[in-house]
Amino acid sequence: MFKDATPGEIDIVMLQAWKAFHEYRKLSLKQRADFMRAIALEMEDAGEALIQTAMSETNLPMARLNGERARTIYQLTSYATACENGEWLEARIDTANPGKTPPRPDIRKMLVPLGPVVVFGASNFPFAYSTAGGDTACALAAGCPVIVKAHPAHAKTSQMVADAILHAAKKCGMPDGIFAHVHGAGFEVGKALVTHSYTKAVGFTGSYLGGKQLFDWANQRKEPIPVFSEMGSINPVFLLQEKMRQSAAETAVQYAGSITLGVGQFCTNPGLIIGIEGQDLNTFISTLGQEIKKMAPGTMLHPGIAKAFSEKRKSALAQGEVETIAISETAATENQGIPTIASATGKAFLNNPVLHQEVFGPYSLVIRCSDRHEMLEVARRLEGQLTATLMATEDDILSSNELVEAVKDICGRFILNGVPTGVEVCLSMHHGGPFPATTDSRFTSVGADGIKRFARPVSFQNWSNRLLPDELKNENPLKIWRTVDNHLTKEAIA
Amino acid sequence: MFKDATPGEIDIVMLQAWKAFHEYRKLSLKQRADFMRAIALEMEDAGEALIQTAMSETNLPMARLNGERARTIYQLTSYATACENGEWLEARIDTANPGKTPPRPDIRKMLVPLGPVVVFGASNFPFAYSTAGGDTACALAAGCPVIVKAHPAHAKTSQMVADAILHAAKKCGMPDGIFAHVHGAGFEVGKALVTHSYTKAVGFTGSYLGGKQLFDWANQRKEPIPVFSEMGSINPVFLLQEKMRQSAAETAVQYAGSITLGVGQFCTNPGLIIGIEGQDLNTFISTLGQEIKKMAPGTMLHPGIAKAFSEKRKSALAQGEVETIAISETAATENQGIPTIASATGKAFLNNPVLHQEVFGPYSLVIRCSDRHEMLEVARRLEGQLTATLMATEDDILSSNELVEAVKDICGRFILNGVPTGVEVCLSMHHGGPFPATTDSRFTSVGADGIKRFARPVSFQNWSNRLLPDELKNENPLKIWRTVDNHLTKEAIA
Repeated sequence: MFKDATPGEIDIVMLQAWKAFHEYRKLSLKQRADFMRAIALEMEDAGEALIQTAMSETNLPMARLNGERARTIYQLTSYATACENGEWLEARIDTANPGKTPPRPDIRKMLVPLGPVVVFGASNFPFAYSTAGGDTACALAAGCPVIVKAHPAHAKTSQMVADAILHAAKKCGMPDGIFAHVHGAGFEVGKALVTHSYTKAVGFTGSYLGGKQLFDWANQRKEPIPVFSEMGSINPVFLLQEKMRQSAAETAVQYAGSITLGVGQFCTNPGLIIGIEGQDLNTFISTLGQEIKKMAPGTMLHPGIAKAFSEKRKSALAQGEVETIAISETAATENQGIPTIASATGKAFLNNPVLHQEVFGPYSLVIRCSDRHEMLEVARRLEGQLTATLMATEDDILSSNELVEAVKDICGRFILNGVPTGVEVCLSMHHGGPFPATTDSRFTSVGADGIKRFARPVSFQNWSNRLLPDELKNENPLKIWRTVDNHLTKEAIA
Repeated sequence: MFKDATPGEIDIVMLQAWKAFHEYRKLSLKQRADFMRAIALEMEDAGEALIQTAMSETNLPMARLNGERARTIYQLTSYATACENGEWLEARIDTANPGKTPPRPDIRKMLVPLGPVVVFGASNFPFAYSTAGGDTACALAAGCPVIVKAHPAHAKTSQMVADAILHAAKKCGMPDGIFAHVHGAGFEVGKALVTHSYTKAVGFTGSYLGGKQLFDWANQRKEPIPVFSEMGSINPVFLLQEKMRQSAAETAVQYAGSITLGVGQFCTNPGLIIGIEGQDLNTFISTLGQEIKKMAPGTMLHPGIAKAFSEKRKSALAQGEVETIAISETAATENQGIPTIASATGKAFLNNPVLHQEVFGPYSLVIRCSDRHEMLEVARRLEGQLTATLMATEDDILSSNELVEAVKDICGRFILNGVPTGVEVCLSMHHGGPFPATTDSRFTSVGADGIKRFARPVSFQNWSNRLLPDELKNENPLKIWRTVDNHLTKEAIA
């Protein structure tokens, strides 16, 4: 339906973005924030038609899409507030000290935008991680133009959101080229965008293969650029013994819900649960099995995801050491994900890399470790994850120091007695994690700290007050927090 | 004199560092800071013998080495203070909100250390960017063990500093493996260190070829890791017209000093000066030439650097369009760098990539642009730089908006009416810059913000106050700045 962008079209889009960059970054923080709020309004004004289009392309239910749109609007407006309050600028001022040997000049530092940012829409979040999603909001807040490559699985939805952004841009008098939207079903469009000399950073949410490919292309450029790929995660959950003694069955019920939420199509889906052999783990497994049997299959986002789930699930269940514990008792129709629980021993897990792979969908593997030592070994052998969870009492934690440290080592968000699904949009959220969960564990893709992905510091040495950016002027006209002579303050400089 | 570390020895060193990591990161910020201060004391206690050794290996004069040691000590002690004050931890707390739909759990985020950091000593700073230099100080502050690969050009100095660090570690009861020192003249040792699975980040200061190679190795790992390579920079200086009318000769005198400071062996040496054809530029060039003729050659750090300078200088001067303006009138002995000024037109510069190359030493090329338009074109064609400088009046700046923006785009530190040599150690300093000045423009290698290079965020979700790290506990026992419910404060949480 949409034609792939040609290399010539991509060149034009990138040149426009490059030109827009030089205009847009000169606008005030308030102007950027107003633009973001205008996008939020347009998203709302797109109304029912936008939801219907997304439903037709993604099979996601209306309630979920309404919720996701509300979240997307909240991202835009809350990051707009963060953009204006300017804490993300990391303003640092050291005033001149002529008496020092050698004399110290006046030096003032703040973050400045990197340049045009290419954002790849995610298949599983048509709003929140796509066209006007978190990456776009962060880049605009940082002062960067955005070029979105629509996800082909919801290209119409993406186009509608792009139109909303362009409408907002027009209303706010933004420079031409501040936002562009390109289609591309093949990898050539993505490659052309990532390797274009005017592209200065990339945001991506999707598969390991896709995200790693972008990372490699970006690093092979003459001028390498940062790539923020959020890739797979199996989000391990560790069941500690005292907690299991107290509430094995309740925990199982809680997890049956988390595993099947949204047909398991969340990057924070708990795909691996690790316990220690014994009566309590048996209770957990049997209760989880009973619950999963009751869960109905759900239609997945698109046939490609359904096919991948079906194949990976089949391959996982076919491993010699894997026992199928429970499968939904409701018959599935085409393109549905069937809730499934399997189990294997700790030894099998340690010896079979296939069991470490993500099965994206309503599937979880329960690992039965022979003892605490084996559980620690499993934790140490896991790759980087977006989240990791401990189901544990305080005594469990206090007596498992090595395990707690090993699990913290591999995750970006460390949950105690909860479920990993559900990613709160707030400043304390870290949605990221060690490779291969993401390509850069130092940055988050959710929460206003994500703005910093698209900026770099510049020091201004010996500039007169008049010539400095407002953010760094003596009188602090924007009333932002700044570290002045090693002292955090909102005060003006006398 | 020192044997290259074998692969087996490197394995042992890295395993010890990995073990030490798990102990060291549990220590308090104060314990880390005390260790850093103990290293500073040991550096001082190493006394005259350390300076003598460095003099014999590097040809640097005593005053410079004493100053550099004092700076290194200041780095250690000031980063220790920054480590303790905890602003770098970026602590963020969002308290639970059970009334929200869905309920928001308590989430608290802070930076945690990455793991063992490999630091490559720089040839031109035997103290400040080497064994106990900025990278080591930042990594220790972040909670990371350090493995230093000694620069072969000052291996004995490096060994003495390493012994001082190990002595401090012993005194402070640090875990075995917190610091290690390996020698390696060939690239194999560096490659083995960067590609080792226990290595989690790399710091490097040196040549483009060296730094880029480490970056490529790191990105080709199964688990890519961040590499902070600070590489070449020609630190362009733009001479604007009104400023030149006012003070062409004074500016020339100022720059003759900067170009020849330390025999030009600073990464911030001004290797390129760009002006606009005319009487004022002629005055600048002739005055600069007279001054340079008076400057004496100086012995360079080691024969390798002297040879490279001699060859690159020769190649630059041999370019058809390059005119030699002035050469020191003092006869040079072996391994000395001869102060040299050359000149070329803007057109020649735009057409000849050789003229963009760094000539590391007391050499600078003056570019004579035909007009402001050509000067803008030169600015736009420059690669990323550590610094860029404008010599300009306020009116020059206000009438050169495009140039100012273009120059800001390519640099990490933007100087007005000063010289780029002299890097102040303070929080507002950004010593970094777009590629190829460094491999990661988002981070500095000077100033306490450099600590953040070696850390990543972790969110703790739903942890009880008792189990949280001190940095995130309700009562804020460390009295650090934290953003609590979007509000920056040192207050406890009620």
